[in-house]
Amino acid sequence: MHIGILGTGMVGRILAVKLLERGQQVSMGTRDVAVTLAKTGPDGMGQPPLSEWLRQNSGVELGNFHQAAQAEVLINATNGTGSLAALEAAGEAALEGKILLDLANPLDFSRGMPPTLSVKDTDSLAEQIQRRFPALRVVKTLNTMNVSLMVDPASLEGGDHTAFVSGNDETAKSAVVSYLKAWFGWREDRIFDLGDLSTARGTEMLLPLWLRAFFKLGNVPFQFKLVY
Amino acid sequence: MHIGILGTGMVGRILAVKLLERGQQVSMGTRDVAVTLAKTGPDGMGQPPLSEWLRQNSGVELGNFHQAAQAEVLINATNGTGSLAALEAAGEAALEGKILLDLANPLDFSRGMPPTLSVKDTDSLAEQIQRRFPALRVVKTLNTMNVSLMVDPASLEGGDHTAFVSGNDETAKSAVVSYLKAWFGWREDRIFDLGDLSTARGTEMLLPLWLRAFFKLGNVPFQFKLVY
Repeated sequence: MHIGILGTGMVGRILAVKLLERGQQVSMGTRDVAVTLAKTGPDGMGQPPLSEWLRQNSGVELGNFHQAAQAEVLINATNGTGSLAALEAAGEAALEGKILLDLANPLDFSRGMPPTLSVKDTDSLAEQIQRRFPALRVVKTLNTMNVSLMVDPASLEGGDHTAFVSGNDETAKSAVVSYLKAWFGWREDRIFDLGDLSTARGTEMLLPLWLRAFFKLGNVPFQFKLVY
Repeated sequence: MHIGILGTGMVGRILAVKLLERGQQVSMGTRDVAVTLAKTGPDGMGQPPLSEWLRQNSGVELGNFHQAAQAEVLINATNGTGSLAALEAAGEAALEGKILLDLANPLDFSRGMPPTLSVKDTDSLAEQIQRRFPALRVVKTLNTMNVSLMVDPASLEGGDHTAFVSGNDETAKSAVVSYLKAWFGWREDRIFDLGDLSTARGTEMLLPLWLRAFFKLGNVPFQFKLVY
């Protein structure tokens, strides 16, 4: 399957490597290819420049957001504050009828640490995206954990923790569940369907707790499990 | 130990029963004793009138908030929207130097279901209480689960799920950890100290996710576990 990852940061890169390993075709989208490739230093997260990373991961095709959005299935791995602009750049025509796995969180770092949420409680980033692009089939998932656990849940307690999914389109949600299992090895009994896309308010609002646990645990891998 | 429970709803009652079983002295506080005792029908949650409940639980002493706050350790089991008023009624003098286990959530049902949070992200109910009563030692805990799990964690997966604690006073937090173990049987390795009281923003903001899981699971007991 041809998968288009929007975003070239740490999340996008780790997803790309895993999807290539799984035999998928991977395109990665950025705002401006020339600008992205011209960067020579590490990014804000300490990642090497993308040009260097692409030499080591030559199976990944880099394009702008519009080009990457030509893929069959899309993954939103942009920063939450840039997600709507990235999808605008992809263009409505490219998005029509496609499934978008929305992994982003509307974290606002402009007021320092810890970040606040730029949308919450009565709305969510996932719903904002869905409203702006009604023909896109948005499924919120994997936004409640570190990327290393997204792609390798079994690395922590044998995968005994929870991936939530939220979405208005039941067929799209079922497809995403099958992707989580096939691509990343998620256990079906640890994928929890919360309901329609408004339930993404709940998982996006888990971020403040996630961040505090992260401040406490540092580099120890951790995740949330819904026990029932 | 003499424990004062503020609030006479389902949470307060189940706590009272468990604490009596544990040999504690329990006072329960309400806004107006005469008004509370005059109620003859079930409350909004379907609980029997308190007068009837007190006949079956004669070890509990009912008083107003001020009287209940004379106890050594206090538990806030009021609705989040009424917590500050209940503590005002208790009075600053009664609260001074005491530990308050704050179990309440700032849920606002005035706009229908699901409720929104009346305070969030940049502040929390726990911090509002702490700011208003600086000499009270507020420890946020147990606000992320159903009351039946608060008092009997072992009833779900042998207690293999998480109680978070947040507070500015380390001594008070340690005392609360010991209470959770002694009163309710919490496993020490499942009590997670998130840090200062601002971390209560995280646990209070877990409520939207809790509510969506509740809508999905209904009466199946569930809880969150921090896996690490």
